[in-house]
Parts: sequence; structure tokens; C-alpha cells
Amino acid sequence: MVEPIKWENRQLVLLDQTRLPLEVKYLTFSDYRQVALAITEMRVRGAPAIGAAAAFGLVLAALEFMSEPKGDFAKLVRGAAKELAATRPTAVNLFWALNRMLERMQREDGSSVAEQLAALEQEALDILSEDVVQNRRIGCYGSELVPPGANILTHCNAGALATGGYGTALGVIRAAHAAGKNVHVYADETRPLLQGARLTVWELHQEGIPVTLVTDNMAGYLMALGKVDLVLVGADRITANGDVANKIGTYGLAVLAKHHGIPFYVAAPLSTFDFTLPDGSKIPIEERLAEEVTSLSGRPIAPPGARVFNPAFDITPHNLITAIITDRGVIRPPYQDNFLYLRASSPVKNNSD
Amino acid sequence: MVEPIKWENRQLVLLDQTRLPLEVKYLTFSDYRQVALAITEMRVRGAPAIGAAAAFGLVLAALEFMSEPKGDFAKLVRGAAKELAATRPTAVNLFWALNRMLERMQREDGSSVAEQLAALEQEALDILSEDVVQNRRIGCYGSELVPPGANILTHCNAGALATGGYGTALGVIRAAHAAGKNVHVYADETRPLLQGARLTVWELHQEGIPVTLVTDNMAGYLMALGKVDLVLVGADRITANGDVANKIGTYGLAVLAKHHGIPFYVAAPLSTFDFTLPDGSKIPIEERLAEEVTSLSGRPIAPPGARVFNPAFDITPHNLITAIITDRGVIRPPYQDNFLYLRASSPVKNNSD
Repeated sequence: MVEPIKWENRQLVLLDQTRLPLEVKYLTFSDYRQVALAITEMRVRGAPAIGAAAAFGLVLAALEFMSEPKGDFAKLVRGAAKELAATRPTAVNLFWALNRMLERMQREDGSSVAEQLAALEQEALDILSEDVVQNRRIGCYGSELVPPGANILTHCNAGALATGGYGTALGVIRAAHAAGKNVHVYADETRPLLQGARLTVWELHQEGIPVTLVTDNMAGYLMALGKVDLVLVGADRITANGDVANKIGTYGLAVLAKHHGIPFYVAAPLSTFDFTLPDGSKIPIEERLAEEVTSLSGRPIAPPGARVFNPAFDITPHNLITAIITDRGVIRPPYQDNFLYLRASSPVKNNSD
Repeated sequence: MVEPIKWENRQLVLLDQTRLPLEVKYLTFSDYRQVALAITEMRVRGAPAIGAAAAFGLVLAALEFMSEPKGDFAKLVRGAAKELAATRPTAVNLFWALNRMLERMQREDGSSVAEQLAALEQEALDILSEDVVQNRRIGCYGSELVPPGANILTHCNAGALATGGYGTALGVIRAAHAAGKNVHVYADETRPLLQGARLTVWELHQEGIPVTLVTDNMAGYLMALGKVDLVLVGADRITANGDVANKIGTYGLAVLAKHHGIPFYVAAPLSTFDFTLPDGSKIPIEERLAEEVTSLSGRPIAPPGARVFNPAFDITPHNLITAIITDRGVIRPPYQDNFLYLRASSPVKNNSD
């Protein structure tokens, strides 16, 4: 199993996802500022993965500031959390993880700096290991929805690489494969950063799960040909009404799936839910640099000066989503009502401010 | 105005579209076999353009065989037409142009080889110049459909580069721009071969028409944001019921446009119509090499051994098309009935066999 995030000798070790699949290279971090940069540069990406990476980034900050007086320590760690939170705006797991870390520090208010540091380290390790457990639960619940021999279309990478390990959407696919369901995956290449071509195909190759790569614009034709039985994607943020922010292109797939009467499933752990937002229109959508679209591996693929619109995510409204597969079970519409149980069991209040 | 196809000193001169926008390079051909290769390799592409290029390819064959006895000459030219027809299966203009050339030769049956050659040369020149005239008519009719200040989404390149000059979909945009309508274009990059990023953006830059480049998977989000007033594409083949084969991804755009209540227009000259086919299911869809998807400028962008599905076209059913803009006027549903006038005025019977 791919391990995208490791904590070794009080250093954060990340698999550099910008270099895959050509190179499997791990990067070692001891400075939280470099972790923030790695999140911005998408060396680590995927909503649950950036949450876990940011949590360990905060542990690195705590290590850096541990010799400061106790009052300053907490202040400096909170400042580092702010820097880590400013890296990417859309995936809520980032804010969820940082808030969870700061709440843990708050609870240890009466303890020494060394004890607070140990608590933070334990909390980050818990976030990482819980995420893998949650993904396995998602896989278990989601696998029930996958018919034998299903052709599954997925977008971007919601795999082990996007999480602590195992994956959300790919976790469901892994579980279905392990259950002998003979699934076959169509992986959208997912422009501009090609997470589907580079990461999803690579990850499925590692495990011998059959996969066919297509460009994003082939999804409609695949569906028209009857080659897609279900669409399965991850999520970067899910609001109180069931609207989903996910990698750009997800919304188009949901419209196409509806047009063809194909089930459209979203897989995500509880840490991806943001019950503070009523609907998707309130989710901040990150826009990234034009160069991601106009060049590839440093080579231009468009004329100089080309004007670009490069939103990294889009919003899929809840009425296009057949079901949301969580670590607490499969939730179907009406989402607002059926989220009540989730909201009650949500360990911390999400807050992206 | 860009001139993608020129006939100079009895040689065919083609703008090498695989090198754009980084390099503006013309290639000179005196061997029809090299023209066939250039069509296969998409150095010239776009339905009307490959029709015109193939017609000149046939003139090159006639030049090559002009010293053969008359009976052999016609046979050899027909053999060359077969080779030129075998290059790409989907765009009907290729077969239309070659049939038109062979019918001209047939009509000159009583003439000398030299006279037949001259007739073929004139016919190819007519095909090229008529195409530009037809595109200007398409532009004129289509411009009426474009509201002032419109944001127009287009896919692939249906521009001067795809035709004898001026363009079909981009011809409409050129005409609307010239009419002072202040249009703005969103150009889908159009994976895998990036004709939108490389060719459409370049072509619009040449004329100062405002254009914003997006990846194919952003179209749905653009529409949801209210940023698209109409979709306008070219066509590679239009059947008797109004179904349209066009660059892969066109069908997905049509479904998205319908979902958002946005008009979806197809622009094409009469030479793109194939009234011998009842509907789109009968159109052969070209599948191209996996390498087009797995590598870019010779660099791999997917893991080695990635399995790929790479259809170059898809079929948009007539019921998703608001209107078809032809050189004979704008045609609206029901297409089968409203094509009657076109069928009567069709200069030659299309035949892709």
C-alpha cells in the first residue's frame, strides 16, 4: 500500500506527488514553512492528505518553538496554524485538522510545553491513523453499492495518495476489487495537473486493478456508449445541504451522469463535511496560476500571453448526487435531514475562518 | 488571414499545424503519398481542410502519372484517391472532395491526359476557393445568432486553420467580431491534441479577438457561473437526421448546454453533410494512438503501460442541437424535413466507401 505521509524521527516525510509517476521520491520536512509551501505547490494534495500534512506541520512548528516561554509557545503555534491554513482555501479538511490540533493544545492549557508538544504529536498521529481507518470503513460501505463487473468512472485522485492511505473513492474501488467484484476503472486524466493520469493510474497499477485512461472530454461519449455503470469521486468540502466541492470537472460529470441515468457517488470522511456552510455557493473556490494550463513540464502548450481561467474546483449541487459514502455509512437524499446523525457525531466543529 | 493550404508552382504548401503555436512552418509537397501521411499525422486537420488537401493530393498524383497511357492514368489516379481516402475515417469532407475530383475526371473522359490534369487542378482550386466563400456565408448567417457582448464557448479548432480559410465556427465569431458585437471566446484546450490551446487561441490572437483558454473539464463550471451565452462548434460529418460527429468532447458540451438552457450551434458547409447515413450511429469513429494521451511533446505524462481509450470524435444527437449554421442559411429542427432544400442543392452525392 502506498504511504504518502509518514512521521519519522520527528520529521514529516511526504511522497512528492508532482514527480509521480516518473519518479517515486520522498521529501523530508523539519520546517513547517516548507510544509506550507509543499501544500501550496501540491507536492501533497487531496483533502484528507493535506489535513494530515498540515497537522504534522503544526507539530514541526511546536518543535521549533518548544524552548519559548509557555505563553509565547501557544501564540507562535497559533501563528503557524494560520500560515498553514492560508495555503489552500477549498478543502475543509485542512481547517478541520488545524482546528482539531489547536483545540487539543487548548485542552492541554494547564500542562507544560513539553506535554503540549507530546499531545500535539499524538493528535497528528491520530488524525493520520484515523483517516486510514475511516477510508477502510468508506470502502466497506461503498463496496456494497458496486455491482459485480462494474465499469467505474473516477476523476482526479481520491486514492491512497489523497489521504492517509487506502483512499476514499479509490478505497471503495479497492474494497470492491478485494471482494472479487471484477471492477474496471476509467480514470479521467484530470487536467490541468493530470492527477488521474499520473496518480490514479499509477496507484491502480500498483494493485493490479484494471484501469483505462481517458481524457476528461471523453466521459460523455463513454457514457453514451454504455461503458460506465457508476461515477465515483472524492470531495474537498461538503456543505450542510449536501453540495460538494471537488476537483474541477466533477460538476460536468455529475450533469452527464444524470443525463444518462447513471448513479453518481461521492466518497468522503466526516472531516470533509462543513456543516457551518448552508450550501456550496459559500465555498471559496481556489483559482490557480495560468501556467498550470499553458505549459506542461515547463514546455509551453499555448501561445505566449494566453489569458486563462483556472479554477481548481467546482461545486456539484446535491440534487445531482445519488449518495454520499461516509465512514459512518451511506447517506442518501434528503441530505439536510439525513446528515443529522453525522452532525451529532462530528467530533469537532469545522471552521474555515 | 491565416492561409493553411496553398497551391504554388504545382506543389501543395501546408501550414504544419502540429508545430503551432511555437513555430509557423510551411511544408511543401510534391508526392501525394506524403500528403496522405500529413493528413494521418494531422499536420493538416479540420474537415474542410483535409478535403481540400486531399483534392490537391490527387492533383499531385495526376502530375506523377501524366506520362502514363490514358487508361492507366485514370486507374492510377483512382488508386491514389483510395490511398488518400484511407487516411482518416470520420470527416466526410475528405470523401466528398475525392469523389468530386473523380467525378470531374469522369466527365473529362473524352479528353487527353493533359486536359484531364488541367481539369483536376482547376477542380481542386475551386474546392479551396469555394470553401472560403462558403465559410464567409456561414459567418454572415451565424453572426445573426450572436447577441452583442456574447461569451461564446468553442471546442477544438473550427477556424481558418481547419478550412480553406476564415473558418466555420470561428468564421461566425470573426463575422460577429467584425460586426462590432464585442464577443469574447472561451476556448476549450481540447485534449489530447490541444487544438483549442494551440490553434484556436493562436488564431484569435492574430485577429485581436478576446479569448480565454480553459481546460475541457471547466466548461460545466463556466456554464453554472453564467459565463457562457452560447456554444459554437464545427462538424466532421452531419447525417440525414441532423446528428453531428465532431471532435471528442463535443457531445459532453451539448449535454451541458442543454442542462443549462444554453443554445448549442453547429457551423458547417454543405460538404460536411452525409445524407447517405440515416443517423450518427453509422458514422465510423476514428480511434487514435494511446501515445496521444500518454505523452506530450514526447514526454510521458502517464505511467508506462497505461491502457488508453482514445476516440478522436463523438456523436452529438440532433435533439441537443439548437440550430445548424450552413452556407445556405441557418437550419433548425426538425432537421430531417428542413434538410430537404439542402439535399436538393447538394452538388455531389457524398459517399464514404
